[in-house]
Amino acid sequence: MSAADPLALAADLIRCPSVTPDAATALDVVQGALEPAGFACHRLVFSAPGTPDVDNLYARIGAGRPHLCFAGHVDVVPPGDEAAWRHPPFSGVIADGELWGRGAVDMKGGVACMMAAALDFLAARGTPAGAISFLITGDEEGPAVNGTRKVLDWMAEQGERPDHCLLGEPTNPKALGETIKIGRRGSLSGRLVITGTQGHVAYPDQANNPIRGLARVLNWLTELRLDDGTTHFAPSNLEVTSIDAGNAAHNVIPAQVTAKFNIRFNDAHTPESLKELIAGRIGEALAGTGLAHDLQFRLSGDSFLTEPGPWVEALSAAIAEVTGRTPHYDTGGGTSDARFIKDTCPVVEFGLTYGLIHAVDERVPVDDLHQLTAIYRRFLERYFA
Amino acid sequence: MSAADPLALAADLIRCPSVTPDAATALDVVQGALEPAGFACHRLVFSAPGTPDVDNLYARIGAGRPHLCFAGHVDVVPPGDEAAWRHPPFSGVIADGELWGRGAVDMKGGVACMMAAALDFLAARGTPAGAISFLITGDEEGPAVNGTRKVLDWMAEQGERPDHCLLGEPTNPKALGETIKIGRRGSLSGRLVITGTQGHVAYPDQANNPIRGLARVLNWLTELRLDDGTTHFAPSNLEVTSIDAGNAAHNVIPAQVTAKFNIRFNDAHTPESLKELIAGRIGEALAGTGLAHDLQFRLSGDSFLTEPGPWVEALSAAIAEVTGRTPHYDTGGGTSDARFIKDTCPVVEFGLTYGLIHAVDERVPVDDLHQLTAIYRRFLERYFA
Ligand SMILES: [Zn+2]
Ligand SMILES: [Zn+2]
Repeated sequence: MSAADPLALAADLIRCPSVTPDAATALDVVQGALEPAGFACHRLVFSAPGTPDVDNLYARIGAGRPHLCFAGHVDVVPPGDEAAWRHPPFSGVIADGELWGRGAVDMKGGVACMMAAALDFLAARGTPAGAISFLITGDEEGPAVNGTRKVLDWMAEQGERPDHCLLGEPTNPKALGETIKIGRRGSLSGRLVITGTQGHVAYPDQANNPIRGLARVLNWLTELRLDDGTTHFAPSNLEVTSIDAGNAAHNVIPAQVTAKFNIRFNDAHTPESLKELIAGRIGEALAGTGLAHDLQFRLSGDSFLTEPGPWVEALSAAIAEVTGRTPHYDTGGGTSDARFIKDTCPVVEFGLTYGLIHAVDERVPVDDLHQLTAIYRRFLERYFA
Repeated sequence: MSAADPLALAADLIRCPSVTPDAATALDVVQGALEPAGFACHRLVFSAPGTPDVDNLYARIGAGRPHLCFAGHVDVVPPGDEAAWRHPPFSGVIADGELWGRGAVDMKGGVACMMAAALDFLAARGTPAGAISFLITGDEEGPAVNGTRKVLDWMAEQGERPDHCLLGEPTNPKALGETIKIGRRGSLSGRLVITGTQGHVAYPDQANNPIRGLARVLNWLTELRLDDGTTHFAPSNLEVTSIDAGNAAHNVIPAQVTAKFNIRFNDAHTPESLKELIAGRIGEALAGTGLAHDLQFRLSGDSFLTEPGPWVEALSAAIAEVTGRTPHYDTGGGTSDARFIKDTCPVVEFGLTYGLIHAVDERVPVDDLHQLTAIYRRFLERYFA
């Protein structure tokens, strides 16, 4: 095989049963392809109490600027019932024009395309004036404690400072070229407990119903319009996910009621601004009611946005050249390791189509592997032009 | 003992361990006192599937009008931990000027006073031109299925038609003579289930949060002012007693939420008018939300009022003569068998003080037994004057 053949690389990766966090064999495949091309490779095993040890790989070629980092993961989610697969999940079979197996799209296929593109670029142009690196983790599908975050810390200590990062997660809903992810909404959860005074319904003057207070809170909380959306983000949104008094007695005013809510927020807000807004409005709603309340927040992820500058336009142009599609800049969906990388350098995501991620019979059209490789290859050309 | 000694009668009744529904021995005491004085006594045992058989007593003397019925119960709630009592709960001990035991105030004491007053009146005046009857049940503290309600049905079949009924339940908060109960608020319970569409909080457009609909309902339901009170009733009141979604997942919009509420209503409303009002307003609140809802009602008791006429004024005058207090006409508190009797004839309630009902160390001052007997005695005098 040619070192720059994405199909062979992807099949080799799929044949490693690297169910998270056991990614070492798949990282060996990556290192085995990059090292002969001149990449300086570092295997980084990290530990933390209560989590499994995880192997990671950082590889770089070139010492100048700009420094482009390709990021990805080679750990995969478990295949589930292997008998349910048309082809065994770790066989890497090519059939009906597709490469089959767990990780084909999420994201061994993407990692193979990034490698193939870089190796072909280096073979054709030699080491660029800038630098190309790979940050490949074995802890994206797991707790994400001993993976990308710690590799980034290690890189900072080593003075490894990428200027831009392209994360190769699958981003396209249906067809290659539809979507570049340039950010994510943040997620903030809240828990409000309102405490009143229990009593018999026949003697309401001797009780203080916390549900009356919650009604005042819900009145605006459920109708809250946080913003109308921003340039790259849909409107922020709050959903009350549960309200519970748990009172079975028809003739008793309960002492306490709990409400839980979740906010998906865009770059018009910070977690702090949201906490202040919500806490203030709840305080106002309950003022004078004689009810006590406790409000707790938990931040699952901050929002972030990579403003699409020339380097993202270069990626977009490469996509258009190869696929004929002008990709949409998107900020929807769930989380990825981009939430860690964005603190190091601007990061966007572009990869395969995500229809089959984590599914039985995960597979990728062979054509898509070649097209994605061509996209990354043309992007490198433009990036280092 | 004299047949008209309320203290001895009450002690005899307390010594019968007539925990509901086993009231037969206590009814024997009542019958044993009334029959020798000329009362025609009927023991009425009623049954119903799923409930215990219950013994009841109906006794009448005199055949003319007016016909005054004394009503009460000799079943009692269980004493709980007998070791916690200063004197055994069924000992009927007289100590420190008080008669001790379960039922002392609720309402063997009251039954004893009614009997003592009637026996004394008959001894002094002979059989009146009208009639005096006793409706004594063994099923007031139990399910109330085989008690007063069925005795009233039996009475109707027999042509026994009292003109007025005095129920001897304890009615005074602190001191004898404070309160005559002339009615009760009704109790209507409701259960509202709102059903939307479950979904992930990140994709609210694909879900329909039922809590948003409930917030609209609670907004007015918790602030609803049903009326400002009527001549004899406090304002009607609605309390939401529970709201529950039971959703543990922070990132999921729930499919369903349930709210329960209870209305204590006065004579400005009927159960039907309330159901119509609530159902209509809920329908308006949820209109256009795309949410489905189901609303169920359960009527625990209708409201009723006995307009205080001359016979109630006679009772009030008797109370004032004995205690020096002018009783307040009240319609508060919980339910009693008056809710059944009111369909047969006007009924009011007046008895002992209720501070110790259903409590450990239930007891009644001996003086109160004599005073209450004197009140009933003077009331008979005025009633048949
Ligand atoms: Zn992935
Ligand atoms: Zn009672």
